[in-house]
Amino acid sequence: MGPSSDTGTSLKSVFWGTFVHSTCNEAVQVLEDTAVGVDHEGKVRGLLCIDVYTSFIFFMPGMVDAHIHASQYSFTGTALDLPLLEWLNTYTFPVEAQFEDPEFAKKIYSQVVRRTLRNGTTTACYFATIYTETTLLLAEIADRVGQRALVGKVCMDRNDGASYYKESTEESMRETDKFITQLLGKGYPLVSPIITPRFAPSCTSPLLEFLGKTAKNNDIHVQSHISENRDEVNLVQQLFPDCKSYTDVYLKHGLLSRKTVMAHACYLSDKELEIFHKTGASIAHCPNSNISLCSGMLDVSRVMKHKVKIGLGTDVAGGYAPSMLDAIRRAIDTSKALTILDPKHQTLTFQEVFRLATLGGSQALSLDDQIGNFAVGKNFDALLVNVSVPDGPIDICNEEDPKVRVQSYIWFDALKHLFSSGDDRNIVEVYVAGRRVVPFDNTS
Amino acid sequence: MGPSSDTGTSLKSVFWGTFVHSTCNEAVQVLEDTAVGVDHEGKVRGLLCIDVYTSFIFFMPGMVDAHIHASQYSFTGTALDLPLLEWLNTYTFPVEAQFEDPEFAKKIYSQVVRRTLRNGTTTACYFATIYTETTLLLAEIADRVGQRALVGKVCMDRNDGASYYKESTEESMRETDKFITQLLGKGYPLVSPIITPRFAPSCTSPLLEFLGKTAKNNDIHVQSHISENRDEVNLVQQLFPDCKSYTDVYLKHGLLSRKTVMAHACYLSDKELEIFHKTGASIAHCPNSNISLCSGMLDVSRVMKHKVKIGLGTDVAGGYAPSMLDAIRRAIDTSKALTILDPKHQTLTFQEVFRLATLGGSQALSLDDQIGNFAVGKNFDALLVNVSVPDGPIDICNEEDPKVRVQSYIWFDALKHLFSSGDDRNIVEVYVAGRRVVPFDNTS
Ligand SMILES: [Zn+2]
Ligand SMILES: [Zn+2]
Repeated sequence: MGPSSDTGTSLKSVFWGTFVHSTCNEAVQVLEDTAVGVDHEGKVRGLLCIDVYTSFIFFMPGMVDAHIHASQYSFTGTALDLPLLEWLNTYTFPVEAQFEDPEFAKKIYSQVVRRTLRNGTTTACYFATIYTETTLLLAEIADRVGQRALVGKVCMDRNDGASYYKESTEESMRETDKFITQLLGKGYPLVSPIITPRFAPSCTSPLLEFLGKTAKNNDIHVQSHISENRDEVNLVQQLFPDCKSYTDVYLKHGLLSRKTVMAHACYLSDKELEIFHKTGASIAHCPNSNISLCSGMLDVSRVMKHKVKIGLGTDVAGGYAPSMLDAIRRAIDTSKALTILDPKHQTLTFQEVFRLATLGGSQALSLDDQIGNFAVGKNFDALLVNVSVPDGPIDICNEEDPKVRVQSYIWFDALKHLFSSGDDRNIVEVYVAGRRVVPFDNTS
Repeated sequence: MGPSSDTGTSLKSVFWGTFVHSTCNEAVQVLEDTAVGVDHEGKVRGLLCIDVYTSFIFFMPGMVDAHIHASQYSFTGTALDLPLLEWLNTYTFPVEAQFEDPEFAKKIYSQVVRRTLRNGTTTACYFATIYTETTLLLAEIADRVGQRALVGKVCMDRNDGASYYKESTEESMRETDKFITQLLGKGYPLVSPIITPRFAPSCTSPLLEFLGKTAKNNDIHVQSHISENRDEVNLVQQLFPDCKSYTDVYLKHGLLSRKTVMAHACYLSDKELEIFHKTGASIAHCPNSNISLCSGMLDVSRVMKHKVKIGLGTDVAGGYAPSMLDAIRRAIDTSKALTILDPKHQTLTFQEVFRLATLGGSQALSLDDQIGNFAVGKNFDALLVNVSVPDGPIDICNEEDPKVRVQSYIWFDALKHLFSSGDDRNIVEVYVAGRRVVPFDNTS
């Protein structure tokens, strides 16, 4: 299954097997007995059908976690039953404040990068903390371990709940400039900076405006949170009385572009979704977090009807699982819960959710020219999946059961197995830009 | 961590470490540095505090899966996006019909018993199929591999959707008698028969009445389904016009007793819950299945307010995960989804759900005199959990982080870690009646 030696002149490796990915027209396209040639830059150079049959083992695109807080990984899963505000003050702010310490930051950031890579996240869109130095460290670790990433230094010049964890407006502006300049200066092939106002309630209007201008002048990405729960929506209306909506706050400050991704978006009006569509801004749907914090249930079908780009996020540690397989499951659960409430709701199919986790995420991050599926010219960011790996979580019971399946269903069943009971044990190899990054090279 | 040699005269083993279980008064009771003496019958003989500190490793009671279809394991996870009726006709009935074949049955039943044991299910309440011989085989396998089980031969003399998979009324009665007599005759220490009408719509009134009498005469358990979704509730009203409610159907046919467990119960009225309370019948809450098949969302708080006994079930393959850890997660999710819809809803705490999965399940199956926690006299059905097992799914980040935790929180955090990101890798040993059954003895 691994890369064979190259026979052509411009190829570095040839991968063969079954490839499963999404295209804009097909939510799940299965390419059996296919060889994919990858060049020295890690990009797909060609696909070729060959005659090798490999059951239950296939390649799929690496998954894109469109929203995750690297700095919250240390308390993942320990905040299952606190409400949002208590959770922020008990865990989030005290822990984020510890990231001033490079030793602590190095330990946690190494863990989260390795854990998510092992779980199949080849691209992550990270929130770090307000500290420039250790946020640069996260970027360095991601690049070295081999994960594609957008990394954001958090900006917040308002924090009534925990005054020890915020910046002055000037500090936030200065550090943001410094962060972008330094990170771009590193020339990491896999990692780019992303402008990161925490969310509207923790930023003043001058700071938001500065960040909007900085994003535009440098043509770089922007991420934040929007409409996560009802209390927050009301709070934003109070804090920004001149803005028509939560979306209008970001729009007015120049923060919405095709390089913007906003987490949650549970309570956007049709008008707000239209603004997203027009500006090209996207949504990171974080179903585990939304359920865990009792925030809301996003109607993804509605977002898609408005032709707004959408991907999936784990939102660690609001979400308790640093796993995109979990995000896939929870996205399906949320859609099904909406169907229980309204049988006319159009339930997401598992194929659609597979696309959200791969191609959708790449679109949400405006990286779909580089990653998201096995289209020629894109980077080979891929997972080698073995559904029936020894000592794994899945028993393959009925491979020879003609009564209940037709041959062409096998790959779909394998995918369903992965998306229902699969875990990191089934992700036997992970590639980013053609380089194998999992299993880890423990010498690095 | 394993059993030490016995120093007393009446003990077979002494287990030491941290024990976490539920009592009627405390949803989570933590006993640190404790030794538990287990006698030659596998029963807890005494608890003693000793001076050994073991971080992140603890014993908890084995989990009780109060509702699982052993015969549906082979297609677990492959039916994520079919509606109930299509799912029954495409997968369930054709596959269950294959269990006439002892070879097929042996393969699948061995897989499901081993998989669920490995996932920490020390007691399972199984639906098998209509076939007596292979249902006896399931009982034999559970007893041999070492899982405590209630095993039911499915009774159904009505099946309009798939006429090839049903019995005549006489057949169903005769085979039920035969099944009970033969299984009781085996004298298996861990496995008992349970009377199993599939559900009201698939049984005629004479069959239900016979089953009620048989249960009463033999003082044995009863299981079935009730109020899983709205269409089914309406169908039952049509099929049994003389009955006041779905619950009344089972009540009238003598099928509700303290040894009865009914799966789902999403749409029971207050009156029906009162009947459950009065008769002592219990509910197996199957949240994964209820979401996956878009059936409904059970309000567990409401059930508990009616003082109706309740446990958790995986309902494989309506539920896609043969794991009680998943059932715990989905129970919390469902409760949180209900809170999103109504902020006044009393969200289940993780402690309460821990109790549902252990003590609650034992109560639901009327086995709480034998199992469910570490009370003296009960069987030692236990899991040895290592939250920080090497190569496991959890990173322990902040064990030395005094800012965000107090010492007494450690065990709670460990439990939360297990319940959020843990899996079978964290369940390093499984004991049933004092016998270590996982890791498997591969010679058996
Ligand atoms: Zn977030
Ligand atoms: Zn069932």
